[in-house]
Amino acid sequence: MSATTEQGPVPRERDRAPKQDRSRATRQRLLEAAVACLAEHGWAGSTVAVVAERAGVSRGAAQHHFPTREDLFTAAVEYVAEERSTALRALFPGGPAERRAVVAALVDLYTGPLFRAALHLWVAASNEDQLRTRVTELEARVGRETHRIAVDLLGADESRPGVRETVQGFLDMARGLGLANLLTDDTARRDRVVTQWAALLEDALG
Amino acid sequence: MSATTEQGPVPRERDRAPKQDRSRATRQRLLEAAVACLAEHGWAGSTVAVVAERAGVSRGAAQHHFPTREDLFTAAVEYVAEERSTALRALFPGGPAERRAVVAALVDLYTGPLFRAALHLWVAASNEDQLRTRVTELEARVGRETHRIAVDLLGADESRPGVRETVQGFLDMARGLGLANLLTDDTARRDRVVTQWAALLEDALG
Repeated sequence: MSATTEQGPVPRERDRAPKQDRSRATRQRLLEAAVACLAEHGWAGSTVAVVAERAGVSRGAAQHHFPTREDLFTAAVEYVAEERSTALRALFPGGPAERRAVVAALVDLYTGPLFRAALHLWVAASNEDQLRTRVTELEARVGRETHRIAVDLLGADESRPGVRETVQGFLDMARGLGLANLLTDDTARRDRVVTQWAALLEDALG
Repeated sequence: MSATTEQGPVPRERDRAPKQDRSRATRQRLLEAAVACLAEHGWAGSTVAVVAERAGVSRGAAQHHFPTREDLFTAAVEYVAEERSTALRALFPGGPAERRAVVAALVDLYTGPLFRAALHLWVAASNEDQLRTRVTELEARVGRETHRIAVDLLGADESRPGVRETVQGFLDMARGLGLANLLTDDTARRDRVVTQWAALLEDALG
């Protein structure tokens, strides 16, 4: 086969980058569609075919990127969690910031579509062994990263006894607030809890 | 029809109580089986027929007690939540008690099969409108009762500013700890968080 066809020259080195960009863009569309789909329809209603259609991608292309349903949805939750972590750090470019603002921003991680999607995945994983191992690993990675961000932005000194557990308990509280927001809009109550616990954390973290 | 048949006298006043007892026992067996079933198999795997079989009750009898699937499962979560509330109060018959013990007992509400069952119901309700209304009402009732018990046993004075939100945030933390225990045994980490947060509550509540 010659380097030239009727459609023009065969792609060479300089054309590879755009092709990689397109592939990456397709992958991102699939990941974002997967999280939106999980949040709206739950695990039972979320198949690779439904996500591919939502993303405007062929089913074959979706399966090229993600061979199994488990691959697609765990990658999707991890990708969106990383995006949110990056956005959260970008909110406080100077590092440690005013505690009320940091507490509110951390709690916000658990009130959107990402948390709903992750919750559907966790609950499905609790009854499906194959999914369970994958989601447990994912949850550990995302949990460690969120803890690291919380420690940094709260300016918490983990060498002091009890500080690590204080931050952990606060992140458990944030997750619980996310759960309380699942069926109803809990914003007003949540704001009061955030204000009070930001003050308590101020005392506890010094 | 005479008051006497070949099988003996037709039941009269004095026989009604045992019959009511049997009916109540059947109802309880169904409710307990429904919670166990939800916790183990999730909403999709929990039908009235599956629960009736598990409880050793005919499907007709189950439908006599609970005309719809929603009736059965919301009643089940409410019944078991009431049982657990009663058991919790019975642990501290003198009312307010040592804070570490009360905090641990309240957190325990969220780590067993009841929480797993309730979580499956919440998550299913977030995607099913009919179930959503029922579960939202149930969740509000159970939440109010748990808050009342927490205030009593912690000896919290809600007339003081911030105390109500302190207790609420603590119960959100307990719920978050329940979520963290869904896929792995989180007991060791949870114990350390409980110890630290009991100390923070001690300072905050005075």
